Amino acid sequence: MTPDTVEFVLNLIGLFAFALSGALLAVRKQYDIIGMAILASMTALGGGLIRDLMIGDVPPSALRNTWWLVIPLIATVITFFFHPQVAKLRRAVQVFDAIGLGVFCAAGATKALLFGLSPLASVLMGVLTGIGGGILRDVLAGSTPAVLARDSKLYAIPTILGSTAVVVADQFGANGILVQFSAAVGITTLRLVALWRGWTAPVPRAAHGQ
Amino acid sequence: MTPDTVEFVLNLIGLFAFALSGALLAVRKQYDIIGMAILASMTALGGGLIRDLMIGDVPPSALRNTWWLVIPLIATVITFFFHPQVAKLRRAVQVFDAIGLGVFCAAGATKALLFGLSPLASVLMGVLTGIGGGILRDVLAGSTPAVLARDSKLYAIPTILGSTAVVVADQFGANGILVQFSAAVGITTLRLVALWRGWTAPVPRAAHGQ
Amino acid sequence: MTPDTVEFVLNLIGLFAFALSGALLAVRKQYDIIGMAILASMTALGGGLIRDLMIGDVPPSALRNTWWLVIPLIATVITFFFHPQVAKLRRAVQVFDAIGLGVFCAAGATKALLFGLSPLASVLMGVLTGIGGGILRDVLAGSTPAVLARDSKLYAIPTILGSTAVVVADQFGANGILVQFSAAVGITTLRLVALWRGWTAPVPRAAHGQ
Repeated sequence: MTPDTVEFVLNLIGLFAFALSGALLAVRKQYDIIGMAILASMTALGGGLIRDLMIGDVPPSALRNTWWLVIPLIATVITFFFHPQVAKLRRAVQVFDAIGLGVFCAAGATKALLFGLSPLASVLMGVLTGIGGGILRDVLAGSTPAVLARDSKLYAIPTILGSTAVVVADQFGANGILVQFSAAVGITTLRLVALWRGWTAPVPRAAHGQ
Repeated sequence: MTPDTVEFVLNLIGLFAFALSGALLAVRKQYDIIGMAILASMTALGGGLIRDLMIGDVPPSALRNTWWLVIPLIATVITFFFHPQVAKLRRAVQVFDAIGLGVFCAAGATKALLFGLSPLASVLMGVLTGIGGGILRDVLAGSTPAVLARDSKLYAIPTILGSTAVVVADQFGANGILVQFSAAVGITTLRLVALWRGWTAPVPRAAHGQ
Repeated sequence: MTPDTVEFVLNLIGLFAFALSGALLAVRKQYDIIGMAILASMTALGGGLIRDLMIGDVPPSALRNTWWLVIPLIATVITFFFHPQVAKLRRAVQVFDAIGLGVFCAAGATKALLFGLSPLASVLMGVLTGIGGGILRDVLAGSTPAVLARDSKLYAIPTILGSTAVVVADQFGANGILVQFSAAVGITTLRLVALWRGWTAPVPRAAHGQ
């Protein structure tokens, strides 16, 4: 497989995993199939859509890529018929989701650099690409965004480190697919280790009387 | 009346109905007049605003059209003084809302095609133009977006069918006002029949033990 | 100090106050440090980000200004370590917040005019720049947006009046820093007086039987 094919396949895996998490949340919230499709699509595509609006790549690449629009619908149909089984694959979905987090984040930071954003802004765009879809999913469904909560394990922190790695490498002239791939692997690995070991981000100490 | 006048008047009816639904929700939530104006404007203009950001028509057409900005404010003032009476017109507001849904959706799909989006992306932009404002309204007000819920009757499905009709007609070279008008009538009719007959979208069967 | 320096410093004060309010809400919601940074950044930058997407200034100025990205992170770190003390400074935060409201709103209306928007649209963009970040903060955190609620004191109304003043002055050819500064002072003062005197916006009379 060429690097492009690898990236394409990893992207599809990430989109599929993100979409499954949206569709499953819709099932838990007892939405109908439309609600499932909307949550699945927003989770999978939301981060990239907002990033593209921000960096000025309009129409957003998701709208120019039929596969990206179709994958969430496939995930919706599968979840519609087989959600008890899909829900049992919670661990597999978490692994896929971590892959999506890594791929989207590394690609997002790279794209922001390509569009001329500053290093700091590019780090933020990488983070946003990774976590934006999940935030939209939770806000639409009336839940606390998982990434804000103290029990989320490390979710945003791997994307911050990974995006920073992409941007620093770029400062040294390294910006090929290998950099993206390494950053994605690092993000995915850190996320999975954090899940496995129960690592969480720092929490402010409790205020008196709360 | 010319076709342009018909479209203009239908648009105003739709904006007005969408704005009323936002203002009425604000009254139920006990917001003040500012909250009413914000919810009314977001409901009426939100779908078109997001669509225009996506397709790259910036500033969005709502910001270039004084009538579109003023209508939600008129709806706010009317609801402020007469909300008990407006709330009693629930059925009339539903009919107006269905008209807005049809007009906005058909116009949204047509505009997306005009801006060069793919058929599938244009269908989605049509749906988004129709349902986006209501989603924003409900998210701002802390309610479950009506379109996600299983008791929403058919709300998104008519827009999917109508947008698809617009896009298919365009593939055959038909993209005039008559196509838009027919699609809008079809969407509105299907929505109203669904309300009347209590049709709902498919729901995944309950998971064991939920 | 030159007018540019004054504006720069006032902007930083506003960003800092808005960011503090986001970080403090995150502490109350028991989020971790990532949740604090996201809420702080969205509160401080959200209004300007949405305005820039709307008027077509892409990438948004917040992404091109390192200070704007860094200030919310500084506010996050301070709040992380000293939130009991910061929370006690509630009154000082409210004053800073009112300064931010004035500065952002006046600057937002001026920028919209500069980008060729109509007077009415420019007023709305001024209001959006002032109140948009706070709305995003509350929606992300699952709270009712403060600006919608009846107990919010005057928050949006000063921005409506101030933006209108900027736009009317522009119609008479006055659009320098002095106009912006005067409008900002007026907005801030009106907001503070409303807080002090307990002024609220009109509320629709209760519906029978509610």
